[in-house]
Amino acid sequence: MSETTPPRYDVIAIGNAVVDVIASCEEELIDELQLNRGGMTLIDEARAAELYEAMPPARELSGGSAANTLAGLASLGLQCAFIGQVADDQLGTVFRHDMRATGIDFDTPAREGEPATGRVLIFVTPDGERTMNTFLGAGQYLPAAALDEELIASGAILYLEGYLWDPEEPRRAMRRAIEVARGAGRKIAFTASESFVIDRHGDDFRAMIEDGVIDILFVNESELATLTGEADFEAGLALVAGKVPVLVATRSEKGAVAIAHGERAEVAAVPVIKVIDTTGAGDQFAAGFLSGYVKSEPLTRCLKRGAIAASECIAHYGPRPEADMIALMAERL
Amino acid sequence: MSETTPPRYDVIAIGNAVVDVIASCEEELIDELQLNRGGMTLIDEARAAELYEAMPPARELSGGSAANTLAGLASLGLQCAFIGQVADDQLGTVFRHDMRATGIDFDTPAREGEPATGRVLIFVTPDGERTMNTFLGAGQYLPAAALDEELIASGAILYLEGYLWDPEEPRRAMRRAIEVARGAGRKIAFTASESFVIDRHGDDFRAMIEDGVIDILFVNESELATLTGEADFEAGLALVAGKVPVLVATRSEKGAVAIAHGERAEVAAVPVIKVIDTTGAGDQFAAGFLSGYVKSEPLTRCLKRGAIAASECIAHYGPRPEADMIALMAERL
Repeated sequence: MSETTPPRYDVIAIGNAVVDVIASCEEELIDELQLNRGGMTLIDEARAAELYEAMPPARELSGGSAANTLAGLASLGLQCAFIGQVADDQLGTVFRHDMRATGIDFDTPAREGEPATGRVLIFVTPDGERTMNTFLGAGQYLPAAALDEELIASGAILYLEGYLWDPEEPRRAMRRAIEVARGAGRKIAFTASESFVIDRHGDDFRAMIEDGVIDILFVNESELATLTGEADFEAGLALVAGKVPVLVATRSEKGAVAIAHGERAEVAAVPVIKVIDTTGAGDQFAAGFLSGYVKSEPLTRCLKRGAIAASECIAHYGPRPEADMIALMAERL
Repeated sequence: MSETTPPRYDVIAIGNAVVDVIASCEEELIDELQLNRGGMTLIDEARAAELYEAMPPARELSGGSAANTLAGLASLGLQCAFIGQVADDQLGTVFRHDMRATGIDFDTPAREGEPATGRVLIFVTPDGERTMNTFLGAGQYLPAAALDEELIASGAILYLEGYLWDPEEPRRAMRRAIEVARGAGRKIAFTASESFVIDRHGDDFRAMIEDGVIDILFVNESELATLTGEADFEAGLALVAGKVPVLVATRSEKGAVAIAHGERAEVAAVPVIKVIDTTGAGDQFAAGFLSGYVKSEPLTRCLKRGAIAASECIAHYGPRPEADMIALMAERL
């Protein structure tokens, strides 16, 4: 690894720039609309219009997996910058505002013309589970040319969102960003995002893991299974653990496991009085974990931070922290 | 009064068509931005941009005083239609969606071009008090020509929002709507909305009261004082009570009073565990009250409905009901 200059940012992320449209609904509506319950489905603009038509009254909050993680990190006091593409429209303005108001630098220019800023239609059932339907909008055309390479080289960690590996242009942009970050001696964190992404791009991910490109990998239980082809959780862990320096596997209410440089740690989920909306829980787990990791805290403590951040998130609508997270961590850790 | 055909709608409202942009903030920000704490201030687009820039991350929910009241009424099973003007833009689409998804008919065409759909920048302090800054946008140009007069004649009650009395075109439209509704033998309900509106248009309101145009008047304590020039609450009530068939005066945590056809009733506020956001509390009080009034329920019960609806509203962010209101009323009444 080459001699590096001290990083200006703790984390720089590339991800979807979308606004979440969140409605509570009854179980029946999920069936009626033939939604992929608990999952994330990519939809086109026509299907987005159709689902919105059928959706109960909603609230809009800025979302996007990696963007949510950055919002969590920024609320924990870390220096962050975001790279992603909105359109030049009202939802784009909302997304940019919310990022900047959280203290995150976000200067990727808005894209002119159609399509609009991406949005995720989220149906939340009474158990708090979210079912996401994503129209990626302008974000799916994020070009490598939109990358600020100097910015990427200036972050200790480059955090990448698997969801955005699916469309071609952002995938190319992320590959270029990885080169830049590694060239500058930075670490690469990657969140697998969703099993369907691994179904489609698992070979890319497995190759990156084998090649030692990924320093920190976030997966959930089903993503780990899809990635490894191994249904047994422990067997899946064993297949990946030696190949990434830090592996974090979340298991919803069963807690989470991390294996880093041969050391293993586990944490239970932090109980909440009532699960309102699980949107963003995984993103905030990653934020909590990384907030400890960047300070070289013990692995168990990093996991604990993740579990606390996730528990705050699922107790309200929306994927980003609403509490004073620094105070919450001080109280709960 | 002329022979009337049975109304097709319980309530038809004319009001602002705006999206609320709601952020939590510390007390200091209210001072720093020189906001009118607890009140509603009309702002232009430049000031809206300036305040948004300074605003913490926010959530967007459809708002507008009369529109919120209709949402409350619709969630209580009443047939409602809304008249108001959005622009042909994303926030306009959001507003229209949320109205229709609540079961409210809303067919006023969107206005092409600038200005954009109105929005209200709402700063919520830790005590749950909301400070509103309203850019009326397209709504302030609602022309009398946009009224569907047949629709107006088909509602048992025409509900008008004082806020919208301020801009000239909607004021003219509302005057015309009053003529149409009265010509069809319908009732006029009016909410004073805010003291500053009465400061500017009190002569209009007092004339309408004197002329017997208003059948149901909603005021809060300070609006009553501004309207009557009488600081003492009871003295203020006495000045208006004889001139409107139904007078409803809300007093926040001190409850509410109604005087109808000489009968007086009072209700205490319904306590909530934690006040999160008072946005829409008055609107939902009006909805609860009217939901009983249209069924000719006893005055005390109408007030109780109002207090229950308001208590549901202040326990969450956003100005419209989130609970199953029919179930809540069944449980609490």
